[in-house]
Amino acid sequence: MSPTEHTVKSFEAELQRLSNLIAQMGGVVEAQVEAAVQAVGRRDVEGATKVMQGDTRLDEFERQIEHDAIRMLALRAPVGVDLREVLAALKISADLERTGDYAANIAKRSIALAQLPVMRPAGTIPRMGRLVQEMLKDVLDAYIDRDVEKAVAAWHRDEELDDLYTSLFREVLTYMMEDPRNITPCTHLLFIAKNLERAGDHATNIAETVHFLVKGQPLTAERPKSDKSSFTIIEPVDSEG
Amino acid sequence: MSPTEHTVKSFEAELQRLSNLIAQMGGVVEAQVEAAVQAVGRRDVEGATKVMQGDTRLDEFERQIEHDAIRMLALRAPVGVDLREVLAALKISADLERTGDYAANIAKRSIALAQLPVMRPAGTIPRMGRLVQEMLKDVLDAYIDRDVEKAVAAWHRDEELDDLYTSLFREVLTYMMEDPRNITPCTHLLFIAKNLERAGDHATNIAETVHFLVKGQPLTAERPKSDKSSFTIIEPVDSEG
Repeated sequence: MSPTEHTVKSFEAELQRLSNLIAQMGGVVEAQVEAAVQAVGRRDVEGATKVMQGDTRLDEFERQIEHDAIRMLALRAPVGVDLREVLAALKISADLERTGDYAANIAKRSIALAQLPVMRPAGTIPRMGRLVQEMLKDVLDAYIDRDVEKAVAAWHRDEELDDLYTSLFREVLTYMMEDPRNITPCTHLLFIAKNLERAGDHATNIAETVHFLVKGQPLTAERPKSDKSSFTIIEPVDSEG
Repeated sequence: MSPTEHTVKSFEAELQRLSNLIAQMGGVVEAQVEAAVQAVGRRDVEGATKVMQGDTRLDEFERQIEHDAIRMLALRAPVGVDLREVLAALKISADLERTGDYAANIAKRSIALAQLPVMRPAGTIPRMGRLVQEMLKDVLDAYIDRDVEKAVAAWHRDEELDDLYTSLFREVLTYMMEDPRNITPCTHLLFIAKNLERAGDHATNIAETVHFLVKGQPLTAERPKSDKSSFTIIEPVDSEG
């Protein structure tokens, strides 16, 4: 084997290792999101605590990926698709780490929720959770297979998630108005839903990164409309004002 | 001038250009945050609309910085502090872009708020806004001067911001319980405050990036405790349950 071949081989091995780390980290994030959403539904304080503790593992993954990627940039000076590979790993690991933070925050809030009465709008949380999990799985598969079509399809599903969030937002507000005792649990529900909506944004970012990685240019289609709830005004039914 | 000198000079010029772009983008983000917070206090729909429109400019900055940084990585293959310079620009522009998104969302919600009664807890929003602006200004100055001490000082202020957020959260919940007509405006206030709290997290990220840029290693101190509101339970005063 010539020295050049050796260098090439081993750069490919390094890229493969980086890719594997992302895939592994992605698997952990998927599991964290699933466990966090389950902890909400099952009022499972123990499960929630595990999710919160599991978050440090994701920080370690991110640090490892950053370390390896920066080392590769410095020592290998990759260009073209190789450069995009390393940059994509950096970006995706940041999005995954952030998604893990949202899972940990959901778990944290589920502990407060478990001490409070069950709220009807909570039924939308598992639906949002499933959608986020599917989006995450699809963008990670798209990354592993370098499959742009799959990435773009997942990217479009963010709109479904935003619609679920917007309808939950309206429902929660109405519910809060019915009884002041609903306000604290409903506020936690709102933020749990918001965390899932943001997790969807990060899956969308990953889809865009996969597009850039494979095609060498940004995804130019209009980004799915996000969070329509910011304009929402709900009035109490029996308002006198 | 020898060709080598020429290359060196021009790489430095490119780095300078990248640094200037970040500084400029940072200035725009500071202005966006300020204008968004003002729009809340003044119930200024026109001002809010301008902030929302101004956000596209930040997306362009981010694209430009990404484009230039990736080109420099590919053509110059920088190492050591030069590599960290380029990576820092990529990271900081992503944090600034996200901060701009939060400013735009605050502006959007201020439009809904302007149609609703004034809420007392809204007084905390300008205080949080000022703190975020100061943190942003400090981390950007720290970036421009490569001043690690200033970056670390700004990094520590995130705790003040989280404390403000947590106390606003409790106040808003109590206020919601007093009158169902407060629920919609208070929900928007909660999310505006949450957006400011997150903007502070991004300023904190920038401080960490400045540390890494100058020192070549991550800031290892314990990250300031974030958002204590996730565990909050507030009961209505006249609860019967």
